[in-house]
Amino acid sequence: MDIAFIGVGTMGRPMAGHLQRAGHRLHLVGHRTPLPDELLANAAVECASPRAAAQAADCVILMLPDTPQVGSVLFDEDGVAEGLSAGKTVIDMSSISPIETRRFAERIEALGCDYVDAPVSGGEIGAQQGTLSIMVGASEAAFERVRPLFEEMGQNITRVGEIGAGQTCKVANQIIVALTIEAVAEGLLLASKAGADPAKVREALMGGFASSKILEVHGARMIERNFEPGFRIELHSKDLNLALESARSLGVSLPNTATAQELFNACMANGGARWDHSAIAKALEMLAAGSIRPD
Amino acid sequence: MDIAFIGVGTMGRPMAGHLQRAGHRLHLVGHRTPLPDELLANAAVECASPRAAAQAADCVILMLPDTPQVGSVLFDEDGVAEGLSAGKTVIDMSSISPIETRRFAERIEALGCDYVDAPVSGGEIGAQQGTLSIMVGASEAAFERVRPLFEEMGQNITRVGEIGAGQTCKVANQIIVALTIEAVAEGLLLASKAGADPAKVREALMGGFASSKILEVHGARMIERNFEPGFRIELHSKDLNLALESARSLGVSLPNTATAQELFNACMANGGARWDHSAIAKALEMLAAGSIRPD
Repeated sequence: MDIAFIGVGTMGRPMAGHLQRAGHRLHLVGHRTPLPDELLANAAVECASPRAAAQAADCVILMLPDTPQVGSVLFDEDGVAEGLSAGKTVIDMSSISPIETRRFAERIEALGCDYVDAPVSGGEIGAQQGTLSIMVGASEAAFERVRPLFEEMGQNITRVGEIGAGQTCKVANQIIVALTIEAVAEGLLLASKAGADPAKVREALMGGFASSKILEVHGARMIERNFEPGFRIELHSKDLNLALESARSLGVSLPNTATAQELFNACMANGGARWDHSAIAKALEMLAAGSIRPD
Repeated sequence: MDIAFIGVGTMGRPMAGHLQRAGHRLHLVGHRTPLPDELLANAAVECASPRAAAQAADCVILMLPDTPQVGSVLFDEDGVAEGLSAGKTVIDMSSISPIETRRFAERIEALGCDYVDAPVSGGEIGAQQGTLSIMVGASEAAFERVRPLFEEMGQNITRVGEIGAGQTCKVANQIIVALTIEAVAEGLLLASKAGADPAKVREALMGGFASSKILEVHGARMIERNFEPGFRIELHSKDLNLALESARSLGVSLPNTATAQELFNACMANGGARWDHSAIAKALEMLAAGSIRPD
């Protein structure tokens, strides 16, 4: 299949590589940053604009930083929309606003094309190993048509609902991850200030109802004081903004998400925009004037 | 060994049974509720008071509802303290205040005895199957001496620090469990109100960084609207009180624990004291005037 892949950064580059190795022809847009050599060396076509890439392809995949970039690549002059014709499919694998996603989809569908939102979790390593979780919002028919592409890039591939539901699921994921990190931080900080060894507390809690991937990985980070990302607070904060925005527009109250966002704010105010998100523990330590373990 | 086991209710009864089957002689106090037949049938000795049981035993195990009951059994007239003599060990397996625990321990140690706090997690099923997690606060020497008893009742047995550290660890466990439940509730409620299928969201999130025992078990409860306990909100609320009390006395701020406690309060104000703790989702639903899925 001819695939326009727009956004070959940390995540998109290895994802596009999996599609290429599966025999698909990639159409890339190199007007911003130089294109990865290994993709060009395997017969990827370099296009002058998103429009040109969309014209040449059956399917357009986006993997971009945030909502404004997706809007711009789709609808600016020489954008994807100008290159689409009926029957093509746009797949947005970026993590962006569920609400804007539905607006983008309406405009794309008006051109006779399908729109699929399919954000991922699993990070750089998941992208490299082709083990991403992919959360899909799409019609049943569009999902079945593009599922083989997802199977080259990920493992746990779930259609969670209609258009927008993939982004909503990703937002739910980011809420649960942030609040579970915050939960582990409150538990370990209290235990530590009360004189228990936080490493032993973590060990005692693994295997019981408090056990989670977060207690295992981010709990260890807090104890080892390893706040190198990982996943940066500034990015997770962007995701919690999406959560709180969606919550407001839907009439839902998310009290602990709001507090977690404020703790991320406190980290950013203290130079921590690029700390790993497990450093939300440091915001609690500021409030407590004490630490889980000194830096 | 001769063991005084005080508190043979839902948890204590099967725990005492494991010790009995391992060949220990139990000394029970039957002044409040009738003693379990299966324990008496296997040569458990019925004593007239905690004092009498402590006199007859090498080691006293308590498995009681809360701090006041432990204080009363230990120090009231005809209590355990009156029956102790130097060299005996008191093991409190109840979940009670870490601060009061240290006060109780001082008084017991003044009698020449050891004090061990060893609360458990794993619930009724863990107690029956002998698979409890046991979180121990004790001197190294006292821990090693009583460890064989713990091995009859549990699997994941960790000494997390000195006296009081076991209770502190249990408090940390209860914080992390409550806040992870609350995290799952915020994520699933938002997803559901945004039109995604919460069951599919849960499925998509299992295996990734959002995955936890809580997402698996309590997430399913929220989706199935199964709020039969399980673990009752009134009990978890008691544990969060211990957390917030300890936090205040230690100079730690636990913002999300405080909010979770308020959500438990809201449940109790709406007749939910005996709902399962996963029903914290119902408090969020009240705030949102909507539900993850209608009852």
